[in-house]
Order: sequence, then structure tokens, then C-alpha cells
Amino acid sequence: MGAAGELQRQIPELVKGIVGSVRQTQKINHIEKHDLPNREATLEILRDLQSLILPGYVRQRLYHSTIEFFVGDLVESLAVRLNDEIARALVHEDCTRCNQTAATRNLRAEAEQITAEFFRRIPAIRALLEKDVQAAYDGDPAAKSFAEIILCYPGFEAITAHRIAHELLVLGVPLLPRIMSEYIHHRTGIDIHPGAKIGESFFIDHGTGVVIGETTVIGNNVKIYQGVTLGALSFPKDANGQIIRDRKRHPTIEDNVTIYANATILGADTVIGHDSVIGGNVWITESVPPYTKVMIEPPQQRFLQKGEGKRP
Amino acid sequence: MGAAGELQRQIPELVKGIVGSVRQTQKINHIEKHDLPNREATLEILRDLQSLILPGYVRQRLYHSTIEFFVGDLVESLAVRLNDEIARALVHEDCTRCNQTAATRNLRAEAEQITAEFFRRIPAIRALLEKDVQAAYDGDPAAKSFAEIILCYPGFEAITAHRIAHELLVLGVPLLPRIMSEYIHHRTGIDIHPGAKIGESFFIDHGTGVVIGETTVIGNNVKIYQGVTLGALSFPKDANGQIIRDRKRHPTIEDNVTIYANATILGADTVIGHDSVIGGNVWITESVPPYTKVMIEPPQQRFLQKGEGKRP
Amino acid sequence: MGAAGELQRQIPELVKGIVGSVRQTQKINHIEKHDLPNREATLEILRDLQSLILPGYVRQRLYHSTIEFFVGDLVESLAVRLNDEIARALVHEDCTRCNQTAATRNLRAEAEQITAEFFRRIPAIRALLEKDVQAAYDGDPAAKSFAEIILCYPGFEAITAHRIAHELLVLGVPLLPRIMSEYIHHRTGIDIHPGAKIGESFFIDHGTGVVIGETTVIGNNVKIYQGVTLGALSFPKDANGQIIRDRKRHPTIEDNVTIYANATILGADTVIGHDSVIGGNVWITESVPPYTKVMIEPPQQRFLQKGEGKRP
Repeated sequence: MGAAGELQRQIPELVKGIVGSVRQTQKINHIEKHDLPNREATLEILRDLQSLILPGYVRQRLYHSTIEFFVGDLVESLAVRLNDEIARALVHEDCTRCNQTAATRNLRAEAEQITAEFFRRIPAIRALLEKDVQAAYDGDPAAKSFAEIILCYPGFEAITAHRIAHELLVLGVPLLPRIMSEYIHHRTGIDIHPGAKIGESFFIDHGTGVVIGETTVIGNNVKIYQGVTLGALSFPKDANGQIIRDRKRHPTIEDNVTIYANATILGADTVIGHDSVIGGNVWITESVPPYTKVMIEPPQQRFLQKGEGKRP
Repeated sequence: MGAAGELQRQIPELVKGIVGSVRQTQKINHIEKHDLPNREATLEILRDLQSLILPGYVRQRLYHSTIEFFVGDLVESLAVRLNDEIARALVHEDCTRCNQTAATRNLRAEAEQITAEFFRRIPAIRALLEKDVQAAYDGDPAAKSFAEIILCYPGFEAITAHRIAHELLVLGVPLLPRIMSEYIHHRTGIDIHPGAKIGESFFIDHGTGVVIGETTVIGNNVKIYQGVTLGALSFPKDANGQIIRDRKRHPTIEDNVTIYANATILGADTVIGHDSVIGGNVWITESVPPYTKVMIEPPQQRFLQKGEGKRP
Repeated sequence: MGAAGELQRQIPELVKGIVGSVRQTQKINHIEKHDLPNREATLEILRDLQSLILPGYVRQRLYHSTIEFFVGDLVESLAVRLNDEIARALVHEDCTRCNQTAATRNLRAEAEQITAEFFRRIPAIRALLEKDVQAAYDGDPAAKSFAEIILCYPGFEAITAHRIAHELLVLGVPLLPRIMSEYIHHRTGIDIHPGAKIGESFFIDHGTGVVIGETTVIGNNVKIYQGVTLGALSFPKDANGQIIRDRKRHPTIEDNVTIYANATILGADTVIGHDSVIGGNVWITESVPPYTKVMIEPPQQRFLQKGEGKRP
């Protein structure tokens, strides 16, 4: 059924008002500009990369005798699509920086080189994930099998996507890594900026609320629980009062560190020494030496009279 | 393949048991009642409103010469659907309150007036979002372009949906604003009740775990990090022991306040004075004067002997 | 458009590299093995169970005179699909434990018995949810109707799915309950392990970041806010240094307890006595007697000179 007469009559005037507002704004319009990378196509690429990297878990019934067919067909299809989105992302960055060098630079050729190099690095990504799934199994008594971790664990989904997105970022791909990392943030509540450097055998348990900032550096065998923030302490500004970008702002976590739920660790110069344990709800803005255990004091307990128990 | 004989044989008896339980319950059934608003249709409306309000980011390749066609067609289609869902929501509220005045009240005409007025306010919503995207860019050194913020940032997705849902709530639309806000809560982990009043240039960074209660009031240029709760301290009850609804229960945040990760601010009378900074993990239940900085004491550090580092 | 010549030429070599890596790994491949339960089919089953258990909220326009047709048709279709996935899950567990007894055990018959028993328990699940929706309405002044809670509240979506997944787990179904609980964790940010035992009239408000561990025991009339963790304190290892699984690791919460935002309660022997109130951000690793109220000290406040307000 359509809008009744009265509403219908007002539509032209309502449209006029909105069109006028579109003409007045710049920052929230994208009109008569270059193509942006397609968000949905980028996420489809991420999902296909996951089924390529974890063969048999998403698409089932694979056999060693015919594995080339599965891998070959998927890589060929992925190469075309990834190449297109990388090219769009390079054009977008070029325009954003007002270089407008697209004419001179051969962005298409750059995209192809990056795409090929990315696929060349997939075996290295898989080798890291083989260690991550073992770290999850060793770290969580509730894990019953590798399949359970790969099919169910948000922490494993997040590190899988991160190792993909980080490699694209390292290869100089703009925007796509962030589209991927925010999709995983939506799905898992785990917010890892693709710029973060994360070592071997990494495990995030539960994960909701975890934030790992752009310039964080994490060593090997690190275990993190839900709600942990590895963040920035402050944002130095330049002479013009503009925030200075592209400098280290987030902490460094050395090997064999465990960080419990809702701990907050801030600052570019903050280093958590190897083999340390950071307790739940701890808040740290300065470095901690190796083999240190940091706990908060247990809270003071106040007792109520019987029957007052439900009053907040 | 079907259920094998033995299971198949038991189905009639199993159905009987479930039907009996359906007949016994009231609160979790909706049988022989008015139509409820359709959740999926409502979310489709929200997504279309986002692509109307941020033209060119979702649907691409728009041109100034033909922008009327895009806006006009989308508004006409949205007007019909939004009008239907608003009418259903008004009927639902009417029945819930046992007014049963639907016969007397002309809910259909009310819905049309609300729908038209909502579209009339879209330019004002867009003007606010233009400032919000700038606030995100200024507030986050990791942001490389407005497009990155609009395509990737959960905090921007949440404030966009909030400014839509809040306007519908102000216009007296029941249920739909909550369906929209909980969908965004699902997607982003950011839980803003549509009733919350939020000023200009608002930025939520990361955002997972943020909770902003129904009666919260937030000024201009406020910046909030993940895990921040602006919540209720207690729920006064009436003479019958029923919680009193529809009164202010949540805090007031004045202009230029920054609230860091996992801070909790509770209470209807709690006012955070302008230009204040609330540190990470702080827990506040009383007002704070302007220009105040609140930090928690750094945690006491206990040292372990070498090799004990991994013991929790 | 296809990949340009240069990239196209490299594809065979890129495929070779990836196939080689697939041959070298074991833990992240599932090749030439038993069928795993299908994740998408399992989630479709969960969604259909929700519309069966909450009739009229998802699929609308139901009438008492014909409710048998709705219930009967849905149960018959669900029985077939649930039975298939349960059988796959039993085979998976059997292979994981290297029992390989599938030949001897009649897993298909076991699956049928479990499927029938699960449907027999649905009335009991519905009776619990009838109390949970009332607890949500009584516990949240922002709730305007039962319909709002059932359509919008992530806490109610999470407890609905938990009561389904927990019953499957109790009946000995592997993997499927975890696939369901992690899907709900994705959607709501609420992470309840299906093993957790939860009493009547349970309410989680907001919920993002809530973690309830596998061996947690929760009494009746318990209310939990966002970011609350009921977790493990440590993981005892056996003589071989392997974590000991299948033992209680998580706390016990007695009747009528309220736990405010971001509180962390850890340890198998930690018991929160009935009618206690745990304040926001509290961190507990030891038992608390009944009628106790635990609060953290209000943070120390440091004042800044005017104009320094924005410095973190």
C-alpha cells in the first residue's frame, strides 16, 4: 500500500529540503568522485581468504588428490577481485592526498604487484595460524578440539583476519585492511588495528572489548583476555595544533606476557617486560620490568544489615 | 533425508507437549494480537536512511546533475515503508497501554504527520553528522580520511543511527527507535538508548562496551572511549514496590569533556563539569566541577622471583 | 574484468606455493576427514527454535485455532535437521577422541534419542523464559513492554539461546552448543558458555562484554550488568604440564545477587553469598558472605589549573 494522499503530496517539498542539504555539505557526501572500494566485495574477499587459508572448515569435503582444483580456482577468482579493490583503494588514497598522480603513477600495475606478493605470503600466514590455534588449545581448558577453536572462537577469527589485513597494510594497501578489521570488530567485539605487529602463538580469550592500537608491538606467546586495552596515552600536536599522525602511540608487550580481563595499558613508551603478568582491571601508563606481576589491591568490603542486601 | 522411523513416530506427541506449553504462557507468546512492527523491515529502513543521509558512500556513482532522482526515489519508497511501521508501532503502544483507543484515535493520520516531520528534520541530522565526522577525524590520529571514518568507524555508525533513532523517539514513535539502537548495539557493541540527548561534534573511539542510558544528557565536543558506562545509580520504587519509570536516572556530561576507557559514571544528579577529563577505569557517582581531572591511583606492583612470572 | 596478463601468468606458481603449505599443515586443515557439523545449518536451526519458542514474535499472525499447524510443521522440519547435525557432532567427537567407535556405537540412534528428548524439554525451557522476560521488565525502568524486551534486548536473546544450548549440552551434544553460543556472542557481545548453570528469573542488562565461564553456577533472581566477568582464576596443570580440563574453574553466584558493570569475579571456590551486591569495577577472587555489599573506594581526584582540562 502507498503513502496516503496527504503524505504523498508533501514528498516533493521534503525531497527539495534534503537535496538542498546534500548540496551544502561536503564531508558526508561522495558525489562526482572516484570509485571507493566496495565494502561488501571486500568482505566477500576476506571470507574467501579465510576458507582458502583454513581449507575444509568452511567449504567441506576436500581431498588431497584434488586440493589443487579447490585452491587454484579460488586463488584465480580472488586474484581478480582483490586486484580490483586494491586498485580502487590506491586511487582513493591518491585522491585523498590530493596527489592526483593517478595519471602518472601506474596504479593498476602497482595493484597487480601487491596482489601477487600477497598470495606469495599466504603460506607464511598459514604457518603463523598453525601456531595460534595450538596456543588457543593450550590456553583454554574449555577447548575440546582444534575444530571447535576454528569454527567457534572469536579470538581465532580475529587473529586470522588480522594476519591477512596486516599483510595487506604492510604491502601498502590503504583502506581495505581497515574495512576488514572493523568487520571483525563488528563480529567479535575485538578491535585490532591492522597496523599492530603481533608475534607467534597469540591467543585472545573471550575477547569482547579488546582494543589493540595501530602502533602496538606484541611479542611471542602473549595471552590476552576480554576488555584489555592497549592504547594511546596522549596525542602530541604540531605547531598548528593538528594531531601528529604516523608515530608510535601504543605500548610494547614482550614475550610470554599474560594480560587479564579489562586491564588498560597506555603509552608509546610503555613496555611490559617479558614473562610478566598483568592482573584484571589494572591500569598502567609506565613500563614494567620483566618477570613482574601487577595486581590491584582487593576492594574494601562494607557489610550491610540483613535485608538491605538489594539496595545499590 | 528424513528423520528415521522412531523419531518420526514421536513427533505428534512432542508437538502436543509444545502446543500445551504455548497455551499456558502469555508473556512470551504473541498470538491473536495486533501486528507488531516488522524487525527486518525496520532495519532495512534504517540502512536506506543511512544511504540517503550519507549519499555516495553506500550506493556509489552519484552526480550533482541527477541527485534529485536518487533522493526523490529513495524518499518516496522510504516514506511508504516508514509510515507503515510507525502506524504499527503506534497501534502496539496503544494496545500495550490498554488504551484500545485505536478506534477513536486516528493512528494512521498521526503516523503520516510524524513521517513527514521526520523527513523535514533530515537536513538538521545531516548538519550534525557533518560535525561528528570532523570530530572523529580531529580526535583520532589513526583516521586517514573522512571516507575511512564513514565506511569503517563503529563510533560513527552508532552516532548516525542514534541521531536518526533519537529524532523518531522525540516525534513520539514507540519501539522502532529501540529496534534500531539494538541493531547498532549488535553491530558495534555501542549501546546508546535513543532517548539520550547528545550535543554537537560527538566522538566515540573504538566503542565496544559503551553504554549511554536513556536519560543521559551530553554537551558539545565530548569524546568517549570504549567501555565507558553512563548509567543509573539506583531505581527508586513507588509505594507498590514498582520501579518508577520515565524520570531522569543517568548523568549529565557538559561540553569539552573526555572520558577514557572503561570509566563508569552513574546517577541522575551526577554532573561532569565542562572541560573535565575522566581517566580510564574511574568510577564516579558524584558531580565533578569544571576543569577537573579524575584519575585512579596507579596500582601497587608486586614483584615475583624469576620463573614465577607465568603464575596468575 | 579479469586479472591483467602479468598477474594471470603468476597464478599457477602462487597456487603451487599455497598447495605446498596446505600439505605441510595439519591443525588448520580439515581434508579427507569426517563431515563437520554445518555452521550455517546449525544457526538456522537456532533461529527456527527461537521462533518456535517465542511464537508470534518472529513469524507473525498466529491464531490459537491453528497453532498446531505452525508448531507441528516447524517441529517436523527442525527434527530432521537437528538430528542430522547432532549425528555429525557425535561422529566428530568420536573421531576427535580417536575412539573411532562409530562403527560399533550406533551414533545415528543416539542422535535420534537426543533429538526427541530435546523437544520434550522445550516446555520447560519456555517456562524459564516466561520468568526471564518478567525479570527483565521488573529490572529495567527503560523497558516499555514484553514485546520490546523480546524484540530488542540482547540480554534476553542471549538467555534464550543459552537455555537452548545448555539443554543440548546436558543431553551430550558436542560442538553445536558452542557454535550457537558464539553466534550469540557475536550478535550481543554476551559470552555465556553453554556449560554454565543458570537459575530462574535471570536478567543481563546491556550485556556487552559479559563473560560467564563453562563451570559457573548461578542461582535464582540474579541480575548482571555489562562487562561482568565470571571467570577462572588459574588453570591447574597435570604431571605432564597439560592444563587439566573438565573440572570446576568458575565461581558460584547464589540467589538474589546483583553484579554491577565491569565487575570481575574469579575462581572455582569463590562463592558470592545470597542477597549480596557487587559494585561496578570490583575485582573479587575470594568468597563473599550473604547480604554483603562490595564497593571499590571512590577514586582520588586531582584538580588541574584552568585551561589544562584537555590534557590527558
